[in-house]
Order: sequence, then structure tokens, then C-alpha cells
Amino acid sequence: MKKNILFICISLLLYACAQERQTSSPVDQIQAQTQRDTFAIVVHGGAGTILKENISDSMELAYKTVLENSVQKGYSILKNGGSSLDAVEASIKILEDSPLFNAGKGSVFTNDGRNELDAAIMEGKTQNAGAVAGVTTVKNPIGLARAVMEQSEHVMLARKGAEEFAKQVDVSLVDPEYFYTDSRMESLKRTQHKDSASNISFYDPLTQDDKFGTVGCVALDKSGTIAAGTSTGGMNNKRWGRIGDSPIIGAGTYANNKTCGISATGWGEFFIRGVIAYDISAMMQYANFSLEEAAKKVIQKKLPEMGGDGGVIGIDHFGNIVTTFNTPGMFRASIDKAGTMSIKLYSEE
Amino acid sequence: MKKNILFICISLLLYACAQERQTSSPVDQIQAQTQRDTFAIVVHGGAGTILKENISDSMELAYKTVLENSVQKGYSILKNGGSSLDAVEASIKILEDSPLFNAGKGSVFTNDGRNELDAAIMEGKTQNAGAVAGVTTVKNPIGLARAVMEQSEHVMLARKGAEEFAKQVDVSLVDPEYFYTDSRMESLKRTQHKDSASNISFYDPLTQDDKFGTVGCVALDKSGTIAAGTSTGGMNNKRWGRIGDSPIIGAGTYANNKTCGISATGWGEFFIRGVIAYDISAMMQYANFSLEEAAKKVIQKKLPEMGGDGGVIGIDHFGNIVTTFNTPGMFRASIDKAGTMSIKLYSEE
Repeated sequence: MKKNILFICISLLLYACAQERQTSSPVDQIQAQTQRDTFAIVVHGGAGTILKENISDSMELAYKTVLENSVQKGYSILKNGGSSLDAVEASIKILEDSPLFNAGKGSVFTNDGRNELDAAIMEGKTQNAGAVAGVTTVKNPIGLARAVMEQSEHVMLARKGAEEFAKQVDVSLVDPEYFYTDSRMESLKRTQHKDSASNISFYDPLTQDDKFGTVGCVALDKSGTIAAGTSTGGMNNKRWGRIGDSPIIGAGTYANNKTCGISATGWGEFFIRGVIAYDISAMMQYANFSLEEAAKKVIQKKLPEMGGDGGVIGIDHFGNIVTTFNTPGMFRASIDKAGTMSIKLYSEE
Repeated sequence: MKKNILFICISLLLYACAQERQTSSPVDQIQAQTQRDTFAIVVHGGAGTILKENISDSMELAYKTVLENSVQKGYSILKNGGSSLDAVEASIKILEDSPLFNAGKGSVFTNDGRNELDAAIMEGKTQNAGAVAGVTTVKNPIGLARAVMEQSEHVMLARKGAEEFAKQVDVSLVDPEYFYTDSRMESLKRTQHKDSASNISFYDPLTQDDKFGTVGCVALDKSGTIAAGTSTGGMNNKRWGRIGDSPIIGAGTYANNKTCGISATGWGEFFIRGVIAYDISAMMQYANFSLEEAAKKVIQKKLPEMGGDGGVIGIDHFGNIVTTFNTPGMFRASIDKAGTMSIKLYSEE
């Protein structure tokens, strides 16, 4: 009898181990249990040496107001049964339209005084994705990224070609002058004066901070679909048609209903080399990490070990939210599945 | 006594399950056991509907000769103690210089009759990487990708900016006319005549095949470092500055000494959305798949389920080689760790 129990126990445990070895089944099982009608949203406005002592109360209020408008806009779409893609696009457009963030209006300048914008969006049910790099006349690059996803057979379009495509779809075009802001020109001159072409971050006179500027949003809608998007003006003083991680699927942007959606901000080269956004998803899918465990392992351990810094926001298929970064601060706001809003700028809050 | 045995057995099995849960330790342990002085190399020249009945004996010989020259060149570098990066670059240059393959000389034309080339290279010890997209005057884009990796602080440069960078480093520049070939112009005219802008593959009059054109190489050197590289003329009749998977780290190209190096060829949009190259590495790292298991799962199951096709070549840290594709054929050659050369074009060989 005891032999039988021993045999059954060992068999069951071996079966459990074998199950662990399957790559997709645990996640599939979890996904099947996911409650529908759960929805949540999180946005970011860049990570860097964002310190309370450098930001006036009025500037802090200005940042928080835009972050709140952004997250509330997406949340209302989700609440009314709208798609996570719609929520992500609408929330990011608010951040792109604000001169406070390095995306859309407010983008940093290239070495030759231009504004070249990148964006990507991805939808977690089908893993459809769209991305644009180096556009100069598109008011909201996130909208063009979505048009690439939905109205072309391509994933990624670059520079003039992307702008040719933009003329054929319904996106707002602007004169390149639209993107000019005094504060970003000041950043460029300061960087060029220092001849510090190696400065990956940029000094923001509004907050007296060196930071990586990017905006992003991840949302889960009532149907269980996750979407993620990222938009950026890229690196201050950038040259040579440099493309960072934001428009690279798997690096700065990724979404998969089986695991999570991720939008990143930071030193883009490291996010590309580390395939950071997809790495978080892969840890969840193949090693049964939670979103928080995976995101923290990647951002707090793997990324700094490579020499990179920055942060990510994410939402898993349960609606759990993560915001994690290895810089002193990250502009971020969220409304969780219980409807609780959170808006934070610094690490210690 | 039997109770004790039962307890010990269950404890051991639970411990085994817990070990499975660790993401890095099994791979790290395996890596520590990897024999040094093992070296191997594999190259590809694109996948597609490559059928024996459509290729004359003389054309077959021509393809095999270039593939052999390419793989032998890299192998001799590895044998003499050279780096996998040197081997990958040298092997790919031979494929780029041949008009038979869609990379370098022999690249397909864009919709407006230009040749816009993409390439990427990655080194597995440090995960350093370099990539270029849309260059028109660089004889060997793989060499420029390596210069981006080693001589800039960036990973990815695009189009005119990348060519500005090219002028500052030691790479051969050519007149855009250099890339003209009659056979590719015939492909463009045929595609445009059919008005089949949706044709992702291109008809190759040399082999009477529709195929995806890309070349790539993965090598493991005696020091245990893996490198991977990919180079392509992209999609025939491409528009809008389209960027495919070849220059996207994690999609068409990836290398990590802990797991493997991968170079892909196929319908690029699906390789981007599936983060195909990194996915194979992630399955090895987090789910303890072998290279062959992971590559086959991705190419034979996940990719076709998404609707995509193509193939990959890869080498793991033991020097094991994989070539797998879900198309009728893939141009490929390898010299394994025992020194055995293999050159194949079709599926059934």
C-alpha cells in the first residue's frame, strides 16, 4: 500500500515537473482564468535624475496635471468599453502634445537642430505592431505608428518613406517648426557647448535634471486585450539617423495577452541589446515569473549589470501594474483595476 | 523507514522542480561546462520556394560554390584562433559580394528603383551590437554594422545619417549603380507589372523561385564567443522606408554566449512581431530547451501559427548547429565542430 502511495506521489510530482517544462501551458491556464471586465492603465513620461529639490511646486503641479489628464483620458475610454489600443493612443497623444515631455511637441533636437520623432504601438491579442522612426512632420507619431499597424502590411517605416505613407493616411501633419521649444534648444546648446556628444541623457532646464525623455502607455481593456505604446524625440544632440529602443518591437515596446504589455524609457542602446520589453514577457511565459518579479529582475539587475539605466511600466493579463526604474525618478501615473489613481515623480513616494 | 524514503523522494523532486524555476542557473552551469577550443560556423543565403526542379545543375553549382567559399572563409579564421565576429563579417562579405544573393551586390530594388540595404551584427559575450538600415552607398553593410557597434555609442543608424557615419569610418563606399543587377530589375518589373505590392517575397529569375532574400552567418570561436550577423536588400518593391527584421536586434539577429546565436531569413514583419531570434534564446535560457528544440518550436509552430514563414540558422555554446525553415528550401552551409562541411539548398537532402 505504502509502495503504491510512494509511486503515486512520485508520478504526480514528475508530472508536475513535466508541466513546468512546457513553455505555454501554465500561462495559457492562467489566461483562461483571467477575469474579463478588468481594466487598468499606466503611463510614463520618462526616467532620469528627477529630484524633488530641483522641481518647483508649480512645475511639479504642471507635470502631474498632464500625467493625470493622460491617464484619465485612457481610463475613460476603457471604462466605456473602448479598446486598449484606443486608450493607449489617446493617452500618449496628450503627452505628445505637451511641451513638458520629450515626445511630439517638446521633443529634443538632433545635432543639426531638427526634431526627429520615433514611436511604436503593439496589440497583445494578435501581436500586431506598428512603428515609425525619424519622422519630422507628423504631429502625433503614435497615431502614425498605429496607421502603419492597421493600414500597411509593414511593421516599421523610417524617415521620408514614413512621411510619404503619412500623407496617405489620416494623421495630422505639421510644419517641422511646430516641434520647436526654447527649453529643448537650450538643452541642445548646452550639450553642444560641453561638446559632450557622449551625453545620452539631456539636461532639462524645466526640472534641472538629466533624464531620458520618452512617453509611454500600457492598458488592459475589458475584453482582456493589452496594448502598449511608446513615443519619443529620442536622444538630445543625436546624429547619424540614430534609432533608439522606443520604435523597436521587443526592446522599448511589447504586448502579449498571454503575459503583459511593456513600455520602456531609458538609455535606448541597452534596451535594444537586452531586448528588455520582450525579456520581461519571456520570463513570465517560460519561467513563471510574475510581472513584478520579471520587471524588477530586468530593470534592477540585468540592465545595470550591462551598464544601462532607465525604467519600464507594464500591465499583466490580470490587470496588475508595475512601474520600476533604476534612476532617481520616473514620471508615472496609473489607475489600477480597483479604480485607484496614483501619480508619482520620484523614487521615494 | 518507508516514510523516510517517501519524504526524501518528495523533497528531492520538489527541489528538482524548484531548480527548474530558476531562470539562469541551469544555463550558467551548462556554460561553465562548455569545452573551449570548440568552433563551428553556419551561413544561410535566404529561404523560400527553392525547388530542385527549377534550378539547373550549373546554377546549383554556382550557389553551392559561393556558399562553400563563404563558410570556408569564416572557418579558416576560426581555425586560426580568430574571433567569431571576424568570421561572421568575412563570411557575410562573400555572400554580399555575390550577385546571387539578395544582400550587397544582388540586392532587390525598392519601388522607386533604388537599392536600400540593411544589416546587423551582434557579439555574444557582451551583447554588443550594431545595425544599419536603408544604406545605399556602402559596399558591405555588415562591415558598417560592425563599425556602428565598435566605433559609435549607438546600436542602430538609419539611411543618410548612417552614410554620414560611414564616411568617418573605414568602409568601402560605392556608387549606388554598383548594386544594379539585371535579374533584380527583372524581379521588380515583374512585381510591379503584376501590381502585387503585397508580394512580400520576390521572384528570382535565376532559380525560378519566390523567396525571401537575406544572408546571414553565426559562428562560435575557440574562446567560446558566439557572433551572429545578417545582411539584406530587404523586400523587393519595398516602399516607405520599410525596415524588416534583419537589422532589428532580437528579431532577425541575436547572440548570447549563455545560449546561442541566431540569424533569420523570412517574412520580416512576422519575425519582428514574434521577436523570433531572441525568443529562441529565451526558451533555452528560461525553459531549458535545446537550441534545436527551441528553433524548431519557433519556426515550425509559432511562426506558421502567426501566418509567417522563413527560417533560421543558429549555433549554441556547445557548437551544436541548427538550420530549420518552414519553406521548401533554404540556401545553407555549415562546418560543424567535428570539421564536417554540409552544403544544402532544398528541404529533402
